[in-house]
Amino acid sequence: MTTTKLFPKGVKATEYFTGNAWIEILTNDIKNFDTMSYVVTFAPGSRNYWHSHPGGQILFCISGEGLFQEKGKPIQFLKAGDVVEINPNVTHWHGATPDNEFVHIGVSTQLSKGPTTWYSAVTDEDYYQMKI
Amino acid sequence: MTTTKLFPKGVKATEYFTGNAWIEILTNDIKNFDTMSYVVTFAPGSRNYWHSHPGGQILFCISGEGLFQEKGKPIQFLKAGDVVEINPNVTHWHGATPDNEFVHIGVSTQLSKGPTTWYSAVTDEDYYQMKI
Repeated sequence: MTTTKLFPKGVKATEYFTGNAWIEILTNDIKNFDTMSYVVTFAPGSRNYWHSHPGGQILFCISGEGLFQEKGKPIQFLKAGDVVEINPNVTHWHGATPDNEFVHIGVSTQLSKGPTTWYSAVTDEDYYQMKI
Repeated sequence: MTTTKLFPKGVKATEYFTGNAWIEILTNDIKNFDTMSYVVTFAPGSRNYWHSHPGGQILFCISGEGLFQEKGKPIQFLKAGDVVEINPNVTHWHGATPDNEFVHIGVSTQLSKGPTTWYSAVTDEDYYQMKI
């Protein structure tokens, strides 16, 4: 269960992330696929802000150890090979565990339903609630 | 550039493939995402039939060495980390090279536009035309 440098790391994320994360766009032909796809690399401890997608999002976990939480539910632990379906308009966040990098492919589906809505940062208090 | 057993191999494909291939469905909540995703593992020499997707398809190459061809164009060589965008209604096939296994994630987008159309098998004559 090892993946090494399957995709490029891409460019540093400049907003809506706590800590260091990198994004490499894989596909963005929205006209032909109504979809965007990308790789996100989260440094240990980093995560994105609470957000939701009007058309949904699918994550394919590629390497490392990650965390995922839907609003009002417990934090879930993610590892390479896990797949996460995030239904339209469900507020959530994802990121690395405190001690490990995490890499996932993300696919934003049905983009014609509208852009991502971003909310506040995931506080350290919320982030360190995970019991893993 | 090594990936080992990132996803399960799944079940043997029973039609529309030449040679041995296995499919593991990753997501099929068409109602919420208008998308299906799956892992395909092609044994060396195996490939699917010529086909087209009304809503398009995206391939994320995970391991091994693969081939891809759009009707009327040269065969392309694929390796881990490559991403292929197959526009709606473009007739194509994909598979392994003659000597190596090939694994990709496939995402069928915009399924509401209709099901895959399957055509004839890729003949050995067509398959062995690749110059790599």
